[in-house]
Amino acid sequence: MKIGKQTIKLESKPCIFSTSSIVGPKEMQGPLAQYFDMHIKDVFFDEKSFEKAESKMLETCINNLIVKSGISQKDIDVIFSGDLLNQCISSCFAIRDFDVPFLGLYGACSTFCEGLLLSSLLIEGNTANEVVASASSHFCSAERQFRLPLEHGNQKSTTAQATVTASGAALVTNRKIADNGIHITHVTPGKIIDLGVKDISNMGAAMAPAAFSTISNHLTDTGRDINYYDCIFTGDLGMHGSDMLKELFKNEGVDITHRHNDCGVLIYDEKSQDVNCGGSGCGCIASVFSSYIFNELKAKKLNKILLVATGALMSPLSSSQGESIPGIAHAIAIENEV
Amino acid sequence: MKIGKQTIKLESKPCIFSTSSIVGPKEMQGPLAQYFDMHIKDVFFDEKSFEKAESKMLETCINNLIVKSGISQKDIDVIFSGDLLNQCISSCFAIRDFDVPFLGLYGACSTFCEGLLLSSLLIEGNTANEVVASASSHFCSAERQFRLPLEHGNQKSTTAQATVTASGAALVTNRKIADNGIHITHVTPGKIIDLGVKDISNMGAAMAPAAFSTISNHLTDTGRDINYYDCIFTGDLGMHGSDMLKELFKNEGVDITHRHNDCGVLIYDEKSQDVNCGGSGCGCIASVFSSYIFNELKAKKLNKILLVATGALMSPLSSSQGESIPGIAHAIAIENEV
Repeated sequence: MKIGKQTIKLESKPCIFSTSSIVGPKEMQGPLAQYFDMHIKDVFFDEKSFEKAESKMLETCINNLIVKSGISQKDIDVIFSGDLLNQCISSCFAIRDFDVPFLGLYGACSTFCEGLLLSSLLIEGNTANEVVASASSHFCSAERQFRLPLEHGNQKSTTAQATVTASGAALVTNRKIADNGIHITHVTPGKIIDLGVKDISNMGAAMAPAAFSTISNHLTDTGRDINYYDCIFTGDLGMHGSDMLKELFKNEGVDITHRHNDCGVLIYDEKSQDVNCGGSGCGCIASVFSSYIFNELKAKKLNKILLVATGALMSPLSSSQGESIPGIAHAIAIENEV
Repeated sequence: MKIGKQTIKLESKPCIFSTSSIVGPKEMQGPLAQYFDMHIKDVFFDEKSFEKAESKMLETCINNLIVKSGISQKDIDVIFSGDLLNQCISSCFAIRDFDVPFLGLYGACSTFCEGLLLSSLLIEGNTANEVVASASSHFCSAERQFRLPLEHGNQKSTTAQATVTASGAALVTNRKIADNGIHITHVTPGKIIDLGVKDISNMGAAMAPAAFSTISNHLTDTGRDINYYDCIFTGDLGMHGSDMLKELFKNEGVDITHRHNDCGVLIYDEKSQDVNCGGSGCGCIASVFSSYIFNELKAKKLNKILLVATGALMSPLSSSQGESIPGIAHAIAIENEV
């Protein structure tokens, strides 16, 4: 049921039953290593190209999810997935071997939350029983598609983020789970916000206003205060974009400092890993949610979170044609049953 | 409610309230000219690039839909859209100026039906009241992205299809409309089917098995016969792919010849327009449904149709890495209230 201007309240409280994550070697050297289900030892994952490696990573991630969930492929009604590659080939080839209906998404780095949002709406409408939301990204496939081939060895600007090599997947179900009541209670699909930022090495700045818009509207629509949530996790504003988000809220007289974290900041160690402003890519929030955050929810260390995936909706071509970078953010309220 | 293995029956019968179409000059010379709402006189549409022209076309199409529907932007809960361009920039930039939540899709030429399908599921679940499903493609932007720059003047193979320059949009609503009862009654989201076709100049062959799979499963799930429907409209198998689909059904002892048509075949005149196997692209089924087919439904010349959008889920990169072309097809049963 729609409440307010932009938010949907889910009466049936769809349950996130389980999650699966897989990351690359660099992510495995980061502070969240202990939470990931699996990692690949080298970026090729025994494949002949970065793109094939990314597909295999996503396919493995969904297969692991199925095993962890104790279900079989035939129990899944739909798989939602998307990625950063042109024509979303990472997802299309990953899901090719599943005997399950597929609905492809493109929302740049907001894709995972777009998938979770649509999964929960299908459950809410009693139009599906078990739905998978998934997303992936790969540093090497993204670099050569969006920027320059790795062999070029170009230097990054200080505001740039590093695309995370990772996949994440979650199973959303209408089953009533006694000991695992992690529910999606509200979703707020985002509008495109474009304040004219054109610097493709500063996507945090392009996306922060979209995150601000969606979070603000979510709070207004639900009548909630920022302190209602244990934490608002954005992904992936990086360090610079996170600072901007705090500033935007500060202008409204709201201090989110102790209620906000960013998946792009969490996944790497700023001091020891050379990642400038942090991580980015569809796989970042997908893998951080599907490991660390879901783990904290299960352990009841977190009980109420707002998961806000942000996307920068440009392409190399749109930027070369002088366009600015439109941003988007989708918010998902995830709460433990109390 | 799910019925059978792959189909969802929509108890609330979401209504397609109105549609909007806009096409390019070549499409306006074709046999469906009288049905389109609007056409652009040249492929640049007063913009500086083909990509910007495509975005403007889609934006205009959605604006026209809003006017035709007698609603305002604030009445729309979500816009679904997708296109063929890398990172779906046609949709992202088209929808940037709308103050409406946006959910981006990628399903290649199946995108329009993916949008209609998800729109109807949101209505069914009472999670939205008014939803727009839209898609676009542009011959010139697609040619230079997927194949060669137009300036190259390359010759097409006889099995190739021509990307349609067009946008289409439909408004799906939960309102009960007295004199316009065009309802979505069932949807069948498709699985990825890949029989190993690698010829990117023969995408009809790559997609026909997916269309066959989805249509067959739809009929099994609903317990319907092929003759239940006045017509099954695929889009876009083209002439060669349509022949393959007929052959696949013939092998099962089913003759679909008089119950099948293809939007890629309908949109051009095979004899006078140089399009080889017919039209393709997200905008083809989007514009043909949003003009000719919707018109025939309103006029009660058609009362029961199955709309089946097919997509070829490859990219130039996946093909250059030796991959085959995965196909997908999503089916939507659209029926007049009797």
